[in-house]
Amino acid sequence: MIKHYENIKVILVEPLGPINVGSIARICENFGIKEIRIVSPKCDLLDLKVKKMALKGMSLIKDAKCYLTLVEAIADCNRVVATCGRIDHGEIPLYSTETTLNWLIDGNPKNTIGIVFGREDRGLTNQELLLAQKVLTINTSPSYPSLNLSHAVAIVLYELSKCIGNSSKVNNHSNNNPAKPKELNDLIDASQEFLLQIGFLYKHTALSKMQKIKSMLQRGEARSEEIALLRGIISQAKWFINKKND
Amino acid sequence: MIKHYENIKVILVEPLGPINVGSIARICENFGIKEIRIVSPKCDLLDLKVKKMALKGMSLIKDAKCYLTLVEAIADCNRVVATCGRIDHGEIPLYSTETTLNWLIDGNPKNTIGIVFGREDRGLTNQELLLAQKVLTINTSPSYPSLNLSHAVAIVLYELSKCIGNSSKVNNHSNNNPAKPKELNDLIDASQEFLLQIGFLYKHTALSKMQKIKSMLQRGEARSEEIALLRGIISQAKWFINKKND
Repeated sequence: MIKHYENIKVILVEPLGPINVGSIARICENFGIKEIRIVSPKCDLLDLKVKKMALKGMSLIKDAKCYLTLVEAIADCNRVVATCGRIDHGEIPLYSTETTLNWLIDGNPKNTIGIVFGREDRGLTNQELLLAQKVLTINTSPSYPSLNLSHAVAIVLYELSKCIGNSSKVNNHSNNNPAKPKELNDLIDASQEFLLQIGFLYKHTALSKMQKIKSMLQRGEARSEEIALLRGIISQAKWFINKKND
Repeated sequence: MIKHYENIKVILVEPLGPINVGSIARICENFGIKEIRIVSPKCDLLDLKVKKMALKGMSLIKDAKCYLTLVEAIADCNRVVATCGRIDHGEIPLYSTETTLNWLIDGNPKNTIGIVFGREDRGLTNQELLLAQKVLTINTSPSYPSLNLSHAVAIVLYELSKCIGNSSKVNNHSNNNPAKPKELNDLIDASQEFLLQIGFLYKHTALSKMQKIKSMLQRGEARSEEIALLRGIISQAKWFINKKND
């Protein structure tokens, strides 16, 4: 996913933890990100823990470009957003994740765009935040707002992929193929006859109870094969009862 | 955040990794979740790695309730959604994260609601998915859809907090009030017993046929009174047959 946007760069500033770096690589691979950039990594990028967490994302780490400063890392980017979890961001305005990412992609799809994440312990400095065009924050509980770095990346990439819009994997449940009305009616008729026979229904209550059942099957958009299954149950129950009568 | 919804339970089924469990506790704390439930944990919940990743979320682990089965873990839940990253989910319909979570909170805010996450390596079984009323999937790249467990939790809680924040804006599209998963399960158990008795089911086909029926009732969001009606039918049919036997 995140297709048609080949030029999204996930940029990490001085990440400390190999577990985080590996996890970030995996989530980037999960969302089809093609490039990770790292400013002055503070851990060994080839640490075994990185590999263990990255799994199929490890190639993103092997191909990651490293930079000395954030300025250099974003030099070729047309649009850049930074992320901020701190509350002491001074006068720098913070926007919601969704608003910011919609802005980020609201341009030429050939743009090179960068999303910048800060250090695990203290995020990005205000000076670094000001290098971006917009700063986003992820709304969390005020009593414990500090997100794990890889969780922040996961949430941002999820929201970004939603903004870009792609729903190939989700079944469009309204494409369900409900049975024909006649099949449903026939089932209801057969069931009513059976339920009268076993004394579950009385003639004067039959209609309203059968309507309840019908409305449930209709709501569930019962399919042909499901209606057939239910008819099979009714037939078998009738047969079983009549056999006993012999 | 996620305030006004005190009764959200994050339910983990057989988690394997202490790093994941700790990370999940932290993200739960970040989003103000008050309770984690764990079905048959496959790692030591007091492992140092759990503590290291959980940070302020560690109290959620200390207070976590453990269960032997998922059925028990969701017994008191009014609404339950499960998560699925597998593609071999058979006929179980998958919905987008946003759609499912909007449905989850679209009821009485005092409802006890459960969100179920499966094992790191193979998720939830189809049988477990059918214990929930709806199943969500997180849209990812088709070439590497497998998310880290704690990332899945992070994304779901982020989306949930957005849904709750927006819920005033969301149209109350379904006034439907589906039965608790336990009511549906009990109906399925009773029906299976009856259908075996009348020879409609054989032991080796029972599971797959009952899953079809269950999936249809789940899709239709069958209500308590409808489930009760169906149970009434089963009881009456049993009674009728036994009477004949006398």
